[in-house]
Amino acid sequence: MKRKIRMGMVGGGSGSFIGAVHRMAANLDGQVELVCGAFSSRPEVARQSGIDLFLPQDRVYTSFEEMVEKEAVLPEDKRMDFVSIVTPNHVHFEPAKLALEKGFHVVCEKPLCFSLEEAYALRKLVEQSDLEFCVTHTYTGYPMVKEARDLIKAGKLGKIRKVIVEYPQGWLSTNVEASGQTQASWRTDPKRSGMGGSVGDIGTHAENLAEYISGLKITELCADVSTMVEGRLLDDDANILLHFDNGAKGVLHCSQICAGEENDLNIRIYGEKGGIVWKQMEPNTLLVKMHEAPAQIYRTGGDRPYLGEGAQAHTRVPAGHPEGYLEAFANLYHNFARVLQAKLEGKQPDPQHQDYPTIYDGVRGMEFIVSVIKSSESQEKWFKFISEE
Amino acid sequence: MKRKIRMGMVGGGSGSFIGAVHRMAANLDGQVELVCGAFSSRPEVARQSGIDLFLPQDRVYTSFEEMVEKEAVLPEDKRMDFVSIVTPNHVHFEPAKLALEKGFHVVCEKPLCFSLEEAYALRKLVEQSDLEFCVTHTYTGYPMVKEARDLIKAGKLGKIRKVIVEYPQGWLSTNVEASGQTQASWRTDPKRSGMGGSVGDIGTHAENLAEYISGLKITELCADVSTMVEGRLLDDDANILLHFDNGAKGVLHCSQICAGEENDLNIRIYGEKGGIVWKQMEPNTLLVKMHEAPAQIYRTGGDRPYLGEGAQAHTRVPAGHPEGYLEAFANLYHNFARVLQAKLEGKQPDPQHQDYPTIYDGVRGMEFIVSVIKSSESQEKWFKFISEE
Amino acid sequence: MKRKIRMGMVGGGSGSFIGAVHRMAANLDGQVELVCGAFSSRPEVARQSGIDLFLPQDRVYTSFEEMVEKEAVLPEDKRMDFVSIVTPNHVHFEPAKLALEKGFHVVCEKPLCFSLEEAYALRKLVEQSDLEFCVTHTYTGYPMVKEARDLIKAGKLGKIRKVIVEYPQGWLSTNVEASGQTQASWRTDPKRSGMGGSVGDIGTHAENLAEYISGLKITELCADVSTMVEGRLLDDDANILLHFDNGAKGVLHCSQICAGEENDLNIRIYGEKGGIVWKQMEPNTLLVKMHEAPAQIYRTGGDRPYLGEGAQAHTRVPAGHPEGYLEAFANLYHNFARVLQAKLEGKQPDPQHQDYPTIYDGVRGMEFIVSVIKSSESQEKWFKFISEE
Amino acid sequence: MKRKIRMGMVGGGSGSFIGAVHRMAANLDGQVELVCGAFSSRPEVARQSGIDLFLPQDRVYTSFEEMVEKEAVLPEDKRMDFVSIVTPNHVHFEPAKLALEKGFHVVCEKPLCFSLEEAYALRKLVEQSDLEFCVTHTYTGYPMVKEARDLIKAGKLGKIRKVIVEYPQGWLSTNVEASGQTQASWRTDPKRSGMGGSVGDIGTHAENLAEYISGLKITELCADVSTMVEGRLLDDDANILLHFDNGAKGVLHCSQICAGEENDLNIRIYGEKGGIVWKQMEPNTLLVKMHEAPAQIYRTGGDRPYLGEGAQAHTRVPAGHPEGYLEAFANLYHNFARVLQAKLEGKQPDPQHQDYPTIYDGVRGMEFIVSVIKSSESQEKWFKFISEE
Repeated sequence: MKRKIRMGMVGGGSGSFIGAVHRMAANLDGQVELVCGAFSSRPEVARQSGIDLFLPQDRVYTSFEEMVEKEAVLPEDKRMDFVSIVTPNHVHFEPAKLALEKGFHVVCEKPLCFSLEEAYALRKLVEQSDLEFCVTHTYTGYPMVKEARDLIKAGKLGKIRKVIVEYPQGWLSTNVEASGQTQASWRTDPKRSGMGGSVGDIGTHAENLAEYISGLKITELCADVSTMVEGRLLDDDANILLHFDNGAKGVLHCSQICAGEENDLNIRIYGEKGGIVWKQMEPNTLLVKMHEAPAQIYRTGGDRPYLGEGAQAHTRVPAGHPEGYLEAFANLYHNFARVLQAKLEGKQPDPQHQDYPTIYDGVRGMEFIVSVIKSSESQEKWFKFISEE
Repeated sequence: MKRKIRMGMVGGGSGSFIGAVHRMAANLDGQVELVCGAFSSRPEVARQSGIDLFLPQDRVYTSFEEMVEKEAVLPEDKRMDFVSIVTPNHVHFEPAKLALEKGFHVVCEKPLCFSLEEAYALRKLVEQSDLEFCVTHTYTGYPMVKEARDLIKAGKLGKIRKVIVEYPQGWLSTNVEASGQTQASWRTDPKRSGMGGSVGDIGTHAENLAEYISGLKITELCADVSTMVEGRLLDDDANILLHFDNGAKGVLHCSQICAGEENDLNIRIYGEKGGIVWKQMEPNTLLVKMHEAPAQIYRTGGDRPYLGEGAQAHTRVPAGHPEGYLEAFANLYHNFARVLQAKLEGKQPDPQHQDYPTIYDGVRGMEFIVSVIKSSESQEKWFKFISEE
Repeated sequence: MKRKIRMGMVGGGSGSFIGAVHRMAANLDGQVELVCGAFSSRPEVARQSGIDLFLPQDRVYTSFEEMVEKEAVLPEDKRMDFVSIVTPNHVHFEPAKLALEKGFHVVCEKPLCFSLEEAYALRKLVEQSDLEFCVTHTYTGYPMVKEARDLIKAGKLGKIRKVIVEYPQGWLSTNVEASGQTQASWRTDPKRSGMGGSVGDIGTHAENLAEYISGLKITELCADVSTMVEGRLLDDDANILLHFDNGAKGVLHCSQICAGEENDLNIRIYGEKGGIVWKQMEPNTLLVKMHEAPAQIYRTGGDRPYLGEGAQAHTRVPAGHPEGYLEAFANLYHNFARVLQAKLEGKQPDPQHQDYPTIYDGVRGMEFIVSVIKSSESQEKWFKFISEE
Repeated sequence: MKRKIRMGMVGGGSGSFIGAVHRMAANLDGQVELVCGAFSSRPEVARQSGIDLFLPQDRVYTSFEEMVEKEAVLPEDKRMDFVSIVTPNHVHFEPAKLALEKGFHVVCEKPLCFSLEEAYALRKLVEQSDLEFCVTHTYTGYPMVKEARDLIKAGKLGKIRKVIVEYPQGWLSTNVEASGQTQASWRTDPKRSGMGGSVGDIGTHAENLAEYISGLKITELCADVSTMVEGRLLDDDANILLHFDNGAKGVLHCSQICAGEENDLNIRIYGEKGGIVWKQMEPNTLLVKMHEAPAQIYRTGGDRPYLGEGAQAHTRVPAGHPEGYLEAFANLYHNFARVLQAKLEGKQPDPQHQDYPTIYDGVRGMEFIVSVIKSSESQEKWFKFISEE
């Protein structure tokens, strides 16, 4: 029987940024229902979050252990189907592991976890189960990202030669963590964030986007990672040269000290016959530039007959009605929920619904962080991308 | 007690465009719950819509009369709080009237209704009740629209001299209604759409936007309305000169035959000291152009300290995470739901939540349609804006 | 024998804006040589201008009468070939008339002259001679304007339905003429500028651009002309509805009180099959928007194989090397000079070289000014475009 | 006595691209006069070039040696003042050397010459003379480039942390040199171009721009240089990490195989307080992005009161009248000519006129080429920038 998919949330109590984003993304398409949460270890925050989210207090928990244990014994028509983990990086592994062990599907914020060891352990758990695991590399949820991938896959650009992917932000241009700003303080704390600062927070998005669209894998890299703001404990800037498995070359740079920049993730990929340009801040436009021809402006929209299946399946409105970050995020939740519904109904999921970032994207992101940090510390020019596959 | 606000929908069965949009907008912020619907008069479509929307079949009705009657007698903790009317124009008045008469709040698609008489009748009903009535002039829901309005209200541009508002679309460049395309066929049918074609469908949005941002009222106009596509029964293009109540002059043009254009609503307003530019297709940017100074790029985002209260209250994410059409639409539903919650709790609503288009915007839109069509038919140069206030 | 074409200038003494522009435009391609000038009636300014421009003092005159008379009797291998008139509007007619009567070709600033009577008189003189007469409607000199015209002529857009042409500026937002600013003071003075303020200064450019690209003629119009700045003697803003000879409709608005705007001439033209967009401030780009297809970005550049002959003939560098206002202006002088060279050599001029605005464009501009001002004063809705052809 | 400065050209015969550009740049402001040329070693091409350029045949030479020798013995009021060298790289050194030895000033295309040895020899010759030497790094001639430099110099951005400079082109995406295309064939030939392909042709522009605007010097770099097109003899793509002398980090990438790109030189520089963005293809705009404030759009134009002296001195028209590549190029020639005029008049040159790229920029460009190529060949991660100062 068809029903909404039931979500339990770990983290995301009142005042959280990304927890609220996950909830909006889960809400948008009406396929997911928030049924419980371990929003905070502080009982009062947990309780108030439950009220704000219209949850009954018996489904509001003060630890993920309690939530997983108690939900596991609820009747099947009541208990949550999956957990959504929106805590800082150091609190990804334990709830994910426990959820998987108790038979719950998982949606997890990126980067996947704290260390490579945790990443490999989670991958093993997922592979041993028949559970779904989504890592929220949001940006591949955009329709024009899917269109770019499809064009390249279809050979429109010819063999790929060059990839330029950038992720400049400016919000950490000053030592805001010193003043206790919530978002900044855990992200710049090696005990909570892990080995990477900007590299983990946004560099992994850039890596994921580049590999997703190009269909290529980074094989080696040369990284120059910096901490520009005095007193900061993790990197806030990185410039990286890339080599890909087909011989293509590339550049990836990410930064949180590009003062005045917002969230300017963007990518350009060039092949023998043409190139594509996509910018997250104008996400409904994909420039397709064929050699010596007028550049073409591909546009998101259900009424654009020239778009491929991937783009069509991930857009909701006609062209000119801008879709944004929350819609891209919702595409992850929508697909994830649809796959779970198919499983519930014993059907084969629609391949378009299976197009969301998985545990493998999450592991690759963790490998990227370690590779970049180690490359930067090394005097070796080319550092082999660490990958235990 | 705080709870989600319960919505019943009129229209919006499977395949509907705007019904799906309303549901996503209502879903996004988790304040509204769809509890029932009269999605279609065709029983099978109604039934399937109910399944797709996870509704119990006893809350799926096959007429709005049935829905309103039956919901009215449900227990208070179960029955819908408001109806959302997403049918073509000729089916706005009856369900709105009935809902108001039975004590339900109303959200209604624009234009408000079919004729000016209906509009005035609805206004009277609302004024005689203590019910809320929202007309979905979506575009004023954008944060940068509110910022523009606030800047002008605060006198930043000085006295306003000129307003240019445009709404070019291209989707009706050919006679698509002849092939039975759903969206096109009722919009070009005077029996379902009313007196105006493009003027009603999109011209009213432009009028609403111009008056909302500028704080001015159109007092007279000179319209040149055309039907460019052979065989079409309503207008598909209009060019209009405007006079405002403070002496400002303006131009409004809207079209559905600007082949190649998507949904390019945009506005420019100039005062003695500077101007603003806003474009719906890049909605997170507001250009503020002060005389002889560098133009400034104001940007949506919860982390933009320079933004005013209106913009801040209607944005969900930090700058650089694009918000779009569905978020603007959701701002209407969010505000509407918050006002209803305040009423339930016996509290004074937050003024920011009261900032959604009301019955008065709806009436003004109807007056605009009639004024434009009559002006176009007239040999008189300046036609007094029809307004029974 | 091939030689540079020799120019004498009327007006354009030190401190002049447009005189300097004409000289740069004439210089750029090395086809024109400045040989003499009546730069100013003030002897000291004239003398100093001659020094600054490296002219011998015996070719520096203090009146156009003196210049024309004296040059006319110089030996053929020395005397000027044409006069370039860069004075305010009220000093166009007399020097142009005298030059034509003495057998000199003429380049004249726009608007052509002070009154319609003068315009018709000049046209008659030109028609009775075999002399060339160029009116510097600069903006049709841009390569992408020529491309747009050629695409439309070739039927790419189908039958034209709508034309939107705009010319907003902001530099007269305050009463700068009161402080004696040179450019402002004559342009706002009916004794020097003529009947039109913004309508003459920039409205004529918009009219010329629209008719040039579309290939259509305005047949009637409805104008709303305003003076927004207190104390100003001529109009500084105009909004105009247009009817064209093929049934197309349009809007033209021009303004010098759009505070914060620079020189934003732009045009959009829509036909049955698609549209074009061109903006003077990004002149090397022409958007070609075909219905339901990705918009295409046509770009100036000698290496763009898809461009037509008109665009190719009026560009100097490869794509991505921006060409601007002075190059567009130089295209007028280059073509004019090449036509004179062809005449000197007894050859048929290259049709591409004959593509510069002539006395007929100048006359049409004057008819436009009078039509707009009279329409604005009239209570008649549709005013027949005055044209004595 | 004030007079035009007299130019003799080496190279630039009919069909040459860059020779024509130099002539237009020299013409624009009317300060320079072409008086002679060694346009080609083929007598017929030389002769025809002389005719096309309206030169007497006795000033048309068939070798630079002949030109320099013969001009050197002409009377002072006739002979050229400087040579402009527009030949391929391997024919820069000899004519420059000879010209300097005979007392002529020099304008020389970039890169300065063929080898580092030649560069140092030329520098020595210039230092031993009192002659002016301009290397045409055109892009620093743009007014907004000067504004960016001045803002940074004045400390507006605070200490500089990051520099991203890009120069993507696409015109060598295929093996066009195989078909004998003139521009491609010498640029890809190590015997005529030197050690660098894209690195020399465009990478040096990027390096020059970055150091000019930032005021910083590259101290070490890590280069990844590629030849992507099969059969090509020189590099066509380079990705480079940069370290600057104040601790700033950076990325420079240049490419001629970014299919679909035109000439997209651009730069972003970030300091502690804000950033700037400049793009050559929209050269009249400089984005100034201060941390947490609305970005500001600085614009070229003589009427922009907020611009600094450098920008004001290098613009010719009011804002909104686009200036482009030829105007930037003309700024080099104009400044160079003004400095020579000042010398002729025995005056101190205006510091703004001295702002053109000199022999030192040329030498630095050659050092950059060698450093990049050697770094790329090296297994060492960080390669010390070769500089013999």
